[in-house]
Amino acid sequence: MTQKEAIEYTINLAKKANENEIRPNPFVGAVIVDHEDQLIGEGYHQKLGGPHAEVYAIEQALEKTTDLSRATLFVSLEPCSHFGKTPPCVDLIIQHKIKKVVIASLDPNPKVASVAKLMEHGIEVEVVNDLSATLLNARFFTNQIKNRPHYILKLASTIDGKIADYEKNSQWISNAASRQFVHDHLRANVDAIMTSYKTVIQDQASLTIRKTGGAIQETNVLVIDKNLDLLEKQYESLPIFYPRTNTKIIFITANPPSIQLPENIECINGTFNEQGLVFSSISAKLLELGFYKILTEAGSQLNSSMIQQNIADELYWFIAPSILNDVNAHSMLGLDEFRGLDKKVQLSLIETKLIDGDVLLHYRFD
Amino acid sequence: MTQKEAIEYTINLAKKANENEIRPNPFVGAVIVDHEDQLIGEGYHQKLGGPHAEVYAIEQALEKTTDLSRATLFVSLEPCSHFGKTPPCVDLIIQHKIKKVVIASLDPNPKVASVAKLMEHGIEVEVVNDLSATLLNARFFTNQIKNRPHYILKLASTIDGKIADYEKNSQWISNAASRQFVHDHLRANVDAIMTSYKTVIQDQASLTIRKTGGAIQETNVLVIDKNLDLLEKQYESLPIFYPRTNTKIIFITANPPSIQLPENIECINGTFNEQGLVFSSISAKLLELGFYKILTEAGSQLNSSMIQQNIADELYWFIAPSILNDVNAHSMLGLDEFRGLDKKVQLSLIETKLIDGDVLLHYRFD
Repeated sequence: MTQKEAIEYTINLAKKANENEIRPNPFVGAVIVDHEDQLIGEGYHQKLGGPHAEVYAIEQALEKTTDLSRATLFVSLEPCSHFGKTPPCVDLIIQHKIKKVVIASLDPNPKVASVAKLMEHGIEVEVVNDLSATLLNARFFTNQIKNRPHYILKLASTIDGKIADYEKNSQWISNAASRQFVHDHLRANVDAIMTSYKTVIQDQASLTIRKTGGAIQETNVLVIDKNLDLLEKQYESLPIFYPRTNTKIIFITANPPSIQLPENIECINGTFNEQGLVFSSISAKLLELGFYKILTEAGSQLNSSMIQQNIADELYWFIAPSILNDVNAHSMLGLDEFRGLDKKVQLSLIETKLIDGDVLLHYRFD
Repeated sequence: MTQKEAIEYTINLAKKANENEIRPNPFVGAVIVDHEDQLIGEGYHQKLGGPHAEVYAIEQALEKTTDLSRATLFVSLEPCSHFGKTPPCVDLIIQHKIKKVVIASLDPNPKVASVAKLMEHGIEVEVVNDLSATLLNARFFTNQIKNRPHYILKLASTIDGKIADYEKNSQWISNAASRQFVHDHLRANVDAIMTSYKTVIQDQASLTIRKTGGAIQETNVLVIDKNLDLLEKQYESLPIFYPRTNTKIIFITANPPSIQLPENIECINGTFNEQGLVFSSISAKLLELGFYKILTEAGSQLNSSMIQQNIADELYWFIAPSILNDVNAHSMLGLDEFRGLDKKVQLSLIETKLIDGDVLLHYRFD
């Protein structure tokens, strides 16, 4: 097994985890090869609070040999060096006198300084900075580096970027398979869906998860609603207010109410300006509440504002094979800003997918 | 060789032609298999005025056997039955008593009625209506069925469908490789580029062909210019007026001038209404002048008008990985029409291509 193969292997191992089971932890995979480059141990982080990838790999290797002093550990992310929910992996590596550690991506958490510690103990360390390993943990890196949730924008439009006609008719732009993809791969893999009170009213949205062949599942919803309009009596029968057993609706508002809120409804305080919510005002609170990864499904105003505030991390854009060809139709994006071409926001394409005639383009924001 | 394989083979043969060498003729490929399904002859239409695919295939088969009475001819397009630049292929098929003819797509020209004629002569005929065979000759079918040129729209925009910022800065939205693709695969394969006088001025466009590794080539340009503004003295040094040896600029205007036009400049008369040029008013004239396939590179107004008039046949859309996020920026499409969602224009995806981070989506209009 070459170094390149070993790193790819750790990344593929890491991906075996269900992110919903590990968040806020990162995806991690590890393999151990002996002095003849034969794989003797492997593992991945499977569950929040459970063993780290390195633990599985080392345990498996020890079943084959008690001497790891000529072995190399490949790990997709820098091993931990601090006591979290489990003891530091660095100590385990040092304890077993592993010869060399190859790290595919560094942990941005300043509490993690494993490279130095390993080297102090005479262990050879090589850091590769592999792009796939970094992309794999995009959410984790956002959480760590930016101290805020990782935001994914979902847009579905015509070729000319329209999400509704001039009368706000929007059902349906994207096809059934694209809408199912949103349930299976986007809604099902985040801590909450974020939207605006306007979209909740306009779309009569329940924002549940309807997985292929499965029952309807609840999900947390974050509703940006400066004046808590949605709590007015006229809206109490909106689909979003279905009976919830294990999820919440959390309103992000300028003025939390003094009245008692219904069960499963909470409010958090955000700062608003003329453009709307200032996202940085809620970052810490959202992480504290366990919202590490958030999918935004909303209208032009919220989407554009997030991009403007440099808070959007990924974009899933479903393009239907149609053209409305009308300037009066509603666009998916656009502020009234008079921005020059030099101020355009840059993205990088991650992948493309054909979905029954629709095209899905998946980007990350640079 | 199965029937499916044989049809695929004829299509691949047909594609070997350079369309510039055969236009206005269609792409055609033909193979002959004997009674044991062994290929004994093949050919494709290579050059306008040259032999048809069937002629090559039959000649090659006759070198192997003089008896084709147990052979099957597969042809990607219905054989011709009229005297054009060459004698009818149907007569040749009848003359050689070929047992069976399998036709992958029918010729829409009513002068071609080969199926009936072949059957009258006791030849078995099977018509398959293969989608690939039909797509291959999209341009030919447009010319034949709609009696007008085949129009290809080229758009290059940001993700939010912008082609220039609020100050009309537009250089560059798409990347260098995408722009090169336009030269190599679009401009180089049409009879003319169509644009508006506004775009010629705004973009300072020369609209030449700069193929990879090649010299600059001239190309015919059709400029929609109702009042012949571009012929005013102030514009005479625009790049479009480079010295031409074998191409023309043809102005489409409401009022052809009485004055003598410079060499290589001509005018044709079109009907204009409030929305601009009425394309049906110039269809016959363009075909007469030999413009069978036209690439449009223009601004929102012309592009939108062509879609509105149901005159756009294909779309090549280059999407740059950027977002302008400004409603004041210039959009690639949009009329002031108040169209309902039920009036949206439908397209079908033909192919996608990644070009150095840009995405190219190629559609046909349904």
